[in-house]
Amino acid sequence: MCREAAIVSIGTELTTGRIRDLHGMYLSRLCTDLGMVVSGILLLPDDHAIAGRLRDLIGVEDLVIVTGGLGPTSDDITREIVAEAAGVELQFREDVWDTIRSRFRRRAPADSNRKQAEIPVGFHVIDNEWGTAPGFYGHVGRSLIVVLPGPPSELIPMCRRTVRPMLEKFFCVPVGHREVLTCFLIPESSLEEIAVAVAVEGVRWSTRAEGSRIVVTLTGGADDAQATFVQRIRRRIGSLCFAPGETSANELLLSALRLRGLRLCTAESCTGGLLAKLLTDVPGSSEVVWGGFVTYDNDAKKRLLGVTGIERYGAVSREVVAAMARGALDASEADVALAVSGVAGPGGGSPDKPVGTVHVAVARRGAPLRTFRLSLHGDRERIRSRSAVATFLLARGVIEEKDVDTDPLWDYI
Amino acid sequence: MCREAAIVSIGTELTTGRIRDLHGMYLSRLCTDLGMVVSGILLLPDDHAIAGRLRDLIGVEDLVIVTGGLGPTSDDITREIVAEAAGVELQFREDVWDTIRSRFRRRAPADSNRKQAEIPVGFHVIDNEWGTAPGFYGHVGRSLIVVLPGPPSELIPMCRRTVRPMLEKFFCVPVGHREVLTCFLIPESSLEEIAVAVAVEGVRWSTRAEGSRIVVTLTGGADDAQATFVQRIRRRIGSLCFAPGETSANELLLSALRLRGLRLCTAESCTGGLLAKLLTDVPGSSEVVWGGFVTYDNDAKKRLLGVTGIERYGAVSREVVAAMARGALDASEADVALAVSGVAGPGGGSPDKPVGTVHVAVARRGAPLRTFRLSLHGDRERIRSRSAVATFLLARGVIEEKDVDTDPLWDYI
Repeated sequence: MCREAAIVSIGTELTTGRIRDLHGMYLSRLCTDLGMVVSGILLLPDDHAIAGRLRDLIGVEDLVIVTGGLGPTSDDITREIVAEAAGVELQFREDVWDTIRSRFRRRAPADSNRKQAEIPVGFHVIDNEWGTAPGFYGHVGRSLIVVLPGPPSELIPMCRRTVRPMLEKFFCVPVGHREVLTCFLIPESSLEEIAVAVAVEGVRWSTRAEGSRIVVTLTGGADDAQATFVQRIRRRIGSLCFAPGETSANELLLSALRLRGLRLCTAESCTGGLLAKLLTDVPGSSEVVWGGFVTYDNDAKKRLLGVTGIERYGAVSREVVAAMARGALDASEADVALAVSGVAGPGGGSPDKPVGTVHVAVARRGAPLRTFRLSLHGDRERIRSRSAVATFLLARGVIEEKDVDTDPLWDYI
Repeated sequence: MCREAAIVSIGTELTTGRIRDLHGMYLSRLCTDLGMVVSGILLLPDDHAIAGRLRDLIGVEDLVIVTGGLGPTSDDITREIVAEAAGVELQFREDVWDTIRSRFRRRAPADSNRKQAEIPVGFHVIDNEWGTAPGFYGHVGRSLIVVLPGPPSELIPMCRRTVRPMLEKFFCVPVGHREVLTCFLIPESSLEEIAVAVAVEGVRWSTRAEGSRIVVTLTGGADDAQATFVQRIRRRIGSLCFAPGETSANELLLSALRLRGLRLCTAESCTGGLLAKLLTDVPGSSEVVWGGFVTYDNDAKKRLLGVTGIERYGAVSREVVAAMARGALDASEADVALAVSGVAGPGGGSPDKPVGTVHVAVARRGAPLRTFRLSLHGDRERIRSRSAVATFLLARGVIEEKDVDTDPLWDYI
């Protein structure tokens, strides 16, 4: 028999269209992965009147996940609404208050934070290491009610660490083997077509698209079926856009460099620091990242990197990006230099070099310099972020001496 | 009296987490703009059982917008569900079928397309020039029900062309004045306490926290009440952490520089390119951003910026960050240089300089150099992002010759 789940996100910022709901998709996929049927995703305002709507779900659904409205302000009333719907009182919990206070190091928590230590009677606390407000869960009739804070930076690690294992236990989900892989730059619809074409009996897949990457999780199938599936996908999408496990393009490049004891320098025009930022997001990247140049202005390209020929070839050209990479090697002690120059838009495009034209160079001491031309679509943010991901994947390919020119990656950018 | 609206999106691909809902935010903003209160956004599977849930809304809500499930396949059952909930039959409309056939220019429509010409009795057609399936609307009891196709490329132009003007006519509600302001770095709980303390009769506020900023929207109150409220908040949180309208710290700094014709250069250690990335996120920033240095390694600080004294003072020190800013001015043609060096963690802390210790320098040609020491907490991402925001706010304060040292900002970092 299929278990039924409902997902409720509370916040007037959702029902006035001020922010986009980020949890419905994540949580409904989580429930679907666990074999449940989601009967509805409800976004409701911070309003006591919604207690009735929550009450309608209790006793009907096997699982009700409620998110949002656990903050310290007066419009955060999820606690009250859940207690009301469950027909119990809220209880101030000293142990929870101690934990909340320990999160405030220098200044004392405000009085308004005290309400975050209130938990409905009979409910259990779900620890939140990533923020102030804990979550909580409890049974009301046949329904398990799980309440989680709204910020994705808190909800997602809490789900991974506590909620998912708990649901697996409560709903006795058989946890089989799961292969996880990451695909970069490929559109979700193309990946779906490939997955359908190479499907292996008994293996199900679910995908999670995040920016320029898609994380694929495989479940089911006979002994080697998942491995066969992975190999087939890899053969189709090539080695540059594929990685085993859940990873990111910056981490892949950092690993490839670390393994070879190479140090990196960046020279960025249109990405304006994004490459360096993404690389230094990773703790311990200082072993590998020597430094970088943001040469946004053409004078900066000349002065910091000794680039010539901008007037002749244009700042967005193979020649200039090659000179930037060479200049970065000359000006630094790094072994490898990456350079990017392109038209990120919205302005600056021309018939010859439309918005989305991006040149990339990868230079390594003692090896031939490589340049690539990308044609990307989308808005400024998308073009900048895909430029960064493509540069990391291409640089990794060059460093690992792969055949970068014939890789299927070029079908996707 | 406020009109109430509910938004229902139908599609099993939404409740299994296969695709993200794109309409809830768009339609709820549309309703909010028209002065309505959205009582809920519901995502429901393609399942006849949901007719009951739709029926619960009819007669209660003034407006019910239903999207999705108008396609030609067997799991597109929105038509049937709406007719069922409204208690009427579906009627095959020859005029609608003619329009659908005219959309198929080269090939003939499939038989399955015929169901797209079925409209609930008593409902009116909403023309769809952008796809096959028309929308429709009608009154059931006190509720206006509007049904629209799922693809955003059809729904959005249909809303602009037909639905919005129709709703404006049906529900002509005057939209009151709204002041919007942005606060930086202040915890949501502290801002709530201030708002409670300075409250003005009749003015309601709602907040939306996003990273290091909180956007506050004021509604209601007499003529000058909102302006009074804004002034009082500004007095309490000071001028550095406050801005009118919805804005970001990087945009504020860029405006301050642009106004004075100043060009900027960055020298980043722990933020590793984040400052430059955030500044160049803004289209047109090339007028202001000359370039930047990511001097992650100490050798990079020495070689690119001529920094001395790292061994004596440590890379995270007032002296080094001052030398970085000076070096960036010397090496560039910029008028203002920002330098940041700190311990972003998770490793690298010491009793003397724990994780979260960040030094910032702001250098302007011909003016005394200023340095600041921040003590931040949180994880690596939070420390880096708050370092960037604090640096932008402090730099703006220095450039605008504000009294930066006594600003309430120091209570929040």
